Amino acid sequence: MLKIIEPTLLLNKSICMQNIKKMAEKAKANGLIFRPHVKTHQSAEIANYFRQYGVNKITVSSLKQAIYFASNNWDDITLAFPVNILELEKIKFLSRSIKLNLLVESVFVTEFLSKHLEHSVGLFIKIDSGYHRTGVDPSNINLINAILNVIENSEHLSFKGFLLHAGHSYAATSYDEIETVHKQSKNIIKNLKKEFYHRYPNLIASIGDTPTCSQMNDFDSIDEIRPGTFVFNDLAQWKIGACTLNEIAIAMSCPVVAKHPERNEVVIYGGAVHFSKDFSFLPSGEKYFGLAVENENNGWNVNNILGFLKAVSQEHGIVKLKVETITQIKEGDILTILPIHSCLTGNLMKEYYSIDGEKITRL
Amino acid sequence: MLKIIEPTLLLNKSICMQNIKKMAEKAKANGLIFRPHVKTHQSAEIANYFRQYGVNKITVSSLKQAIYFASNNWDDITLAFPVNILELEKIKFLSRSIKLNLLVESVFVTEFLSKHLEHSVGLFIKIDSGYHRTGVDPSNINLINAILNVIENSEHLSFKGFLLHAGHSYAATSYDEIETVHKQSKNIIKNLKKEFYHRYPNLIASIGDTPTCSQMNDFDSIDEIRPGTFVFNDLAQWKIGACTLNEIAIAMSCPVVAKHPERNEVVIYGGAVHFSKDFSFLPSGEKYFGLAVENENNGWNVNNILGFLKAVSQEHGIVKLKVETITQIKEGDILTILPIHSCLTGNLMKEYYSIDGEKITRL
Repeated sequence: MLKIIEPTLLLNKSICMQNIKKMAEKAKANGLIFRPHVKTHQSAEIANYFRQYGVNKITVSSLKQAIYFASNNWDDITLAFPVNILELEKIKFLSRSIKLNLLVESVFVTEFLSKHLEHSVGLFIKIDSGYHRTGVDPSNINLINAILNVIENSEHLSFKGFLLHAGHSYAATSYDEIETVHKQSKNIIKNLKKEFYHRYPNLIASIGDTPTCSQMNDFDSIDEIRPGTFVFNDLAQWKIGACTLNEIAIAMSCPVVAKHPERNEVVIYGGAVHFSKDFSFLPSGEKYFGLAVENENNGWNVNNILGFLKAVSQEHGIVKLKVETITQIKEGDILTILPIHSCLTGNLMKEYYSIDGEKITRL
Repeated sequence: MLKIIEPTLLLNKSICMQNIKKMAEKAKANGLIFRPHVKTHQSAEIANYFRQYGVNKITVSSLKQAIYFASNNWDDITLAFPVNILELEKIKFLSRSIKLNLLVESVFVTEFLSKHLEHSVGLFIKIDSGYHRTGVDPSNINLINAILNVIENSEHLSFKGFLLHAGHSYAATSYDEIETVHKQSKNIIKNLKKEFYHRYPNLIASIGDTPTCSQMNDFDSIDEIRPGTFVFNDLAQWKIGACTLNEIAIAMSCPVVAKHPERNEVVIYGGAVHFSKDFSFLPSGEKYFGLAVENENNGWNVNNILGFLKAVSQEHGIVKLKVETITQIKEGDILTILPIHSCLTGNLMKEYYSIDGEKITRL
């Protein structure tokens, strides 16, 4: 039994397990390599939940994460972030002991790796899926060939395939928009395979975002998926239709510290340093930072929404409540709040508590 | 000499010292108690910089901060956050060893403290300055009297005064707007003093926000100031005119990991988990998360702005650069970026490095 006295990040393990099962089964049904992204949870214990579905490969977004998971018995890791050549020593350290895949998108960085690495490393060429954050323009076949030539002439580098991250799916507002993004990724992959498949029949086409992996069912031409957020889900995923409220596996438990019934508000201990400042918009157009739901047996019940987190400052949150709730609540009570963005909330909180009080550590 | 290989939060100590000196001298010139808020830096070492100006009182926003600073030789602390009655044991622990002031705004919480505390604690009544986050409506004299009656009849509680935080000054867009907020606070204080000064001639009227403390010069009727952000400043303070770019004491140093000259952009290792997601708007109307400035002797030069941080995801940042900069920059170079909100950036980074390489720890 958990006694909450300060902002605490709760994990409903059975929802989390369900989320993992659903995605693992989808990957299996579609013949896809399932290489989940661990950046959302960053917990060796939660990563272990995946092993019962045969998962033995993961994706990370920093060398810190790679070293943490490598030291926790994961030996096949893709670092889905452009290589930071300043961290060469860490890359060398990891490449001595695990199967490490890195992302490249320039001749300069590929040559740097070719020159300095002393053990095998797999390389994915990062392709811009239309999100325009990182990656090679998929029509720039010359650049792809130039990178491949460096790889071919290198002693320790091997070409693994093409990696896309359709991050613009997170801005989608409907199933149709997610589908448009997904089709765009598949077209890019089909064209790249047409160009390179004869030379590299084992190349892996890898996609990564939770919205398309959760919502789509046609993975034709795709070989690997790397979703991460689905493990917890959050209100951002809920808003775009990628999960139901029942599939959100984490929630913040926050003490009520002040009451303002004249404006149906309470102040909670729980602010930007706990939730992050990620926000979304209610159907009414109001900005919000989380949804307050009914407490239930140390967990929560999404069928009774009590109000919403309307503002956060560093340590304070302001929760707008229904009239019938505000009259019952007092200072020292606990409000449970679903977060907008589980990755950032987890990063700030640094540990999870299962609803029966078990502490789950993370990086 | 500092070797940067990952996102690193730099502190220019001489700017920080100047910021402290300026505010300390202003407080002295106006006969004000200077009780700086330490939530921005949360560092015992940086708090020590204040001692040369005779500062021996601080403000914190959590019991965690209070315990950290109490264990670092600060023995007069105001916790400027509504009392979380669930943390009673920590309050009792602190009240045994230091002069602790707490904030109340309800009879319920004041009675709780009166009943449970075993050592002296000072109480400020939190007054809503018009920000409408927390505090008693200043016209609600009945509620103030009811709280005072509980204090009067308590063995360990003593009334210290009225505490305001004009947080709406952070949304100001001009000197005039900050002045309006400041006048509003002063009027509230004058009215409260008229009502209560005869009974409590030693009551302290305390205000807290950096914008009014930095910009205003008339502190008539105010007894104490508690600004915090001024110690580092940031682009949010710069935008509202509360500091110059030269007065920003911290900056993020981030490795460049990818280049996209076709859109004048580079990708940096440095994202939402380093900067936070706080943003502001450029004069052009574009959203931005930081300003890239020229590197100079391990520090930076604000007279040469290279571009702006246009987007952040979890670990990535996208920096839009001037054409002349993009042609010179390559993967593995370092970009130095002034943050929008120094409190949240400091909270995420958890340590500072002085520009000559000294590590400065924090809570």
